[in-house]
Amino acid sequence: MRIGVDAMGGDFAPGVVIEGLAQALVDFPSIEVVLAGHKERVEFYLEKYGLTGHKRIELVHAPSVCEMSEQSAISLRAKRDSSITVLARLLKEKKIDAMATPGHTGATVAATKVLVRTLPGIDRPALAASMPSKTGRFLLMDAGANTDCTALNLVQFALMGNVYAQYLYRKEAPRVGLLSVGGEDIKGNELTKEAFKRLEQLPINFIGNVEADAAFEGEADVVVSDGFSGNVMLKSAEGLARSTIFWLKQVLTKNALRVMGAVLAKNAFTELKAFGSSDVIGGAPLLGINGICIIGHGGSNPIAVRNAIRVSAECVEFGLNQRIVNAVETAGDVAKLLKYPPENAPAAQ
Amino acid sequence: MRIGVDAMGGDFAPGVVIEGLAQALVDFPSIEVVLAGHKERVEFYLEKYGLTGHKRIELVHAPSVCEMSEQSAISLRAKRDSSITVLARLLKEKKIDAMATPGHTGATVAATKVLVRTLPGIDRPALAASMPSKTGRFLLMDAGANTDCTALNLVQFALMGNVYAQYLYRKEAPRVGLLSVGGEDIKGNELTKEAFKRLEQLPINFIGNVEADAAFEGEADVVVSDGFSGNVMLKSAEGLARSTIFWLKQVLTKNALRVMGAVLAKNAFTELKAFGSSDVIGGAPLLGINGICIIGHGGSNPIAVRNAIRVSAECVEFGLNQRIVNAVETAGDVAKLLKYPPENAPAAQ
Repeated sequence: MRIGVDAMGGDFAPGVVIEGLAQALVDFPSIEVVLAGHKERVEFYLEKYGLTGHKRIELVHAPSVCEMSEQSAISLRAKRDSSITVLARLLKEKKIDAMATPGHTGATVAATKVLVRTLPGIDRPALAASMPSKTGRFLLMDAGANTDCTALNLVQFALMGNVYAQYLYRKEAPRVGLLSVGGEDIKGNELTKEAFKRLEQLPINFIGNVEADAAFEGEADVVVSDGFSGNVMLKSAEGLARSTIFWLKQVLTKNALRVMGAVLAKNAFTELKAFGSSDVIGGAPLLGINGICIIGHGGSNPIAVRNAIRVSAECVEFGLNQRIVNAVETAGDVAKLLKYPPENAPAAQ
Repeated sequence: MRIGVDAMGGDFAPGVVIEGLAQALVDFPSIEVVLAGHKERVEFYLEKYGLTGHKRIELVHAPSVCEMSEQSAISLRAKRDSSITVLARLLKEKKIDAMATPGHTGATVAATKVLVRTLPGIDRPALAASMPSKTGRFLLMDAGANTDCTALNLVQFALMGNVYAQYLYRKEAPRVGLLSVGGEDIKGNELTKEAFKRLEQLPINFIGNVEADAAFEGEADVVVSDGFSGNVMLKSAEGLARSTIFWLKQVLTKNALRVMGAVLAKNAFTELKAFGSSDVIGGAPLLGINGICIIGHGGSNPIAVRNAIRVSAECVEFGLNQRIVNAVETAGDVAKLLKYPPENAPAAQ
């Protein structure tokens, strides 16, 4: 199995990526790695971590880098030889089975959409973020790949999320909910009301509307959403987590007694932070493209990189994409009902 | 000044409402109160809190109650004599200057929209929720009154939010941001891109797109959003706050050392909870209706009720609605440019 790894992705590239890769090569002996990045910079770190000339690493030179501040479309057009574009091309040509990047989400979505294209039956790929809930985790999708969605897009997200949750959470029939503004069936906006009618017909465990707070309480395993609202939810969680840690520090350092208490309970706060961490997951897959692509957080540490590589390999073993294609086919007649008629479709015979 | 108070609103009505009212009557000697609720049940609590026959309370019998679980439209049609409908009618007839309810948001929005109608120049009222940020608070609007919005709605929300933030946060030129999925101007969905062009032209301190995490970091005083995404943000914050408290308890009770630490730092956790509390604010105004209406949390305690009454009175004194009407007029020529042309408008001469 060949996994493409973006050596230049993330805030601490390439050092952090190579360190995570070193661990992955030890832990997962069956994988081979195609490492895309700036040759000289990568080689420096390969030597540092004792990986120079490693027989399971093939280094592909990708001289330019998608800076985190750059716009996705520009990166794609201007940087045909960036590590992300190089990997997307290898994925398209089936020279790698999967790619992992702790990098620029927008650039990766753009590159894979254009170069790798989507699976049969899928119109738009979606970013599936695993979020912490009170009782475990849930899959939020789309977490930001598509700002404007149709009801049919949401239906496809539900089918894909269902398959991925089967793998990620080891659940046979994940509870799939639709992100909305009220728990009752009739609540929502035009988009969710339209999607609701279609989701009800799918051969999945659809549990109806789920409000954002209920999702964080653990009421669903998959939360289906357009990419705008999904991204608002994702970023709200990130922002509020940072604020909470800031407030905690503030209130715990107000006097000597509290500081003493905080010192005694120190490990508890380390554990608290771990609830929100996605290091174990490694990253969010971009589901629906014709290849496996795991996108890690820009701030990924070596453990997250190692796990992004693990998840990439596991998705290949799981046959994720074939299962998605099957799911869309199984939804078969339902899916046909779901398809919006083309604008000038002839009347049914 | 006459403030209408919904005695039957919220999870702990009417006891909690009457207790809060008792405090408000002491603290704000210039207000008179029209109390709407089930006569016998309310009188029991009036006696309990020594308010029987109070000369600044007029009790209006409203026999039926909008249960929290009921649907808004049904409540409005079926319950013409609910406390919310009674107050909305009094507000429409200018028999009260403002109303405060710790109750059913949906029913209140429906009743005031239908009975009280909107201010001149405002198409849709919006719920303005004050949210905690790292450095203070920000106004999120619309927090859930309108699930589908036009760009023009968002423009009006921005004008109204700007005025309300001037009162609530005592800022002359509040920083008004547009909730989006990227900080750059061009990021967003069709709705926000359209709204962005219009917001830029307004005579307000428009700071461009704001991501949800940046909002929680305190980058804006007003965050303009459609009611669906706004509600997702509000509920995400509520849900994540509850999860965080749950996790904190879990990690702090794992062993004796941590428990001891938690006991020493006990007051810190009480203060932490206070960051998220809206008791000081009392509730969220429904901005844009032709009258002042403050909607408190269903779980309001007496302090929140007292403050909802205070905020109602302060909004009247501030001349909130006249200022909103002026703001829309001042935006004058801009606002005309902003109006969508009617579908069959004749071509410009």
